[in-house]
Amino acid sequence: MQDASRISSALMRRLPRYYRYLQELSGRGVTRISSQELALRMRLTASQIRQDINCFGGMGQQGYGYQVASLRDKIGELLGLGREYAMVIVGAGNLGQALSKYGGFADTGFRVCALFDVNRRLIGGEVSHHPVYHVSEMPGFLREHPIDIGVITVPAEHAQATCDILAQGGVSAIWNFAPVDLRAPEGVSVENMHLGDSLLVLSYKLTNP
Amino acid sequence: MQDASRISSALMRRLPRYYRYLQELSGRGVTRISSQELALRMRLTASQIRQDINCFGGMGQQGYGYQVASLRDKIGELLGLGREYAMVIVGAGNLGQALSKYGGFADTGFRVCALFDVNRRLIGGEVSHHPVYHVSEMPGFLREHPIDIGVITVPAEHAQATCDILAQGGVSAIWNFAPVDLRAPEGVSVENMHLGDSLLVLSYKLTNP
Repeated sequence: MQDASRISSALMRRLPRYYRYLQELSGRGVTRISSQELALRMRLTASQIRQDINCFGGMGQQGYGYQVASLRDKIGELLGLGREYAMVIVGAGNLGQALSKYGGFADTGFRVCALFDVNRRLIGGEVSHHPVYHVSEMPGFLREHPIDIGVITVPAEHAQATCDILAQGGVSAIWNFAPVDLRAPEGVSVENMHLGDSLLVLSYKLTNP
Repeated sequence: MQDASRISSALMRRLPRYYRYLQELSGRGVTRISSQELALRMRLTASQIRQDINCFGGMGQQGYGYQVASLRDKIGELLGLGREYAMVIVGAGNLGQALSKYGGFADTGFRVCALFDVNRRLIGGEVSHHPVYHVSEMPGFLREHPIDIGVITVPAEHAQATCDILAQGGVSAIWNFAPVDLRAPEGVSVENMHLGDSLLVLSYKLTNP
């Protein structure tokens, strides 16, 4: 995609926030917004907003502002929305189950195909209509079902091996909730959700106000 | 604390990772590590490592490296570990329940005191031995129990009101899982875990490889 080459890593990480704000504005019937108003809401500067939006093809008009719906759609397109992503969740414990039950992801095209675990009480069953298989079945499953995103919610000591199996099975995006930094082969993206690290940032701030 | 004043926001966010690595090394019986080895593991440069560690009181010796356990303890102290943090979880749905069941937080001193929800089927019951109360009881609860951290796992449209009640009740750290950016009064820290934003970063990378 031509536009994506102009998007820095920092801007890329702001895109989901833009999308959320514009989606919310659109939902409230707002059709137009100025860079100043958007800046106020997003706590960025208006010049930052204008610079960002210029990077994906400048869609504003002097004195008129941005059209909320078309800007949202443009950002949604950049984010790869509008298609379906097949996911597997490895680790069907509390967190894996909570993620598989969360409908918000499915609404935006992220579809859970299966969960994997080693717990015999879970295997063969279902979690919110998704089948749970033994992790040993994962390589075979990945050969038969093309999967985009692998979600890792296994204990830390099994996270790297899980990442390796997913990558070997052709999964090119890893959403990692295990408290480890994974080594993934080139071409495989890892996005970390380190809950424990985030909590320690809060304890730091409580201790050093 | 004297040391904390020298710690930048970027370094502060690296501290939990340092702590994790040093904890793991210590668990494997490693007593000493050079900045080069630590750099390799953490995928930082050795000079970055030395600079970071100097900020909290330079504990290395030329040609000897760092003592793993004492460096870990120093960082743990900076992070405010070694004391207990009282938490409430607002929103006892799948995610709130998963967080309340996760033992890893309790091991490091983060203790869940109660959950709050509006679901009549949950209220009056328990989730993994923690009581579930109606959200209307929250102000009274906070008057009687000093709470350090409020975890928000309610739907987006109720997140700001929840944040307000927590802040008014003296809670000075908010761990926010709702997909909104909260306005918190001065002195109240907010740490966001925007799961949806993180997933969109993956779909972006899948779409723009």
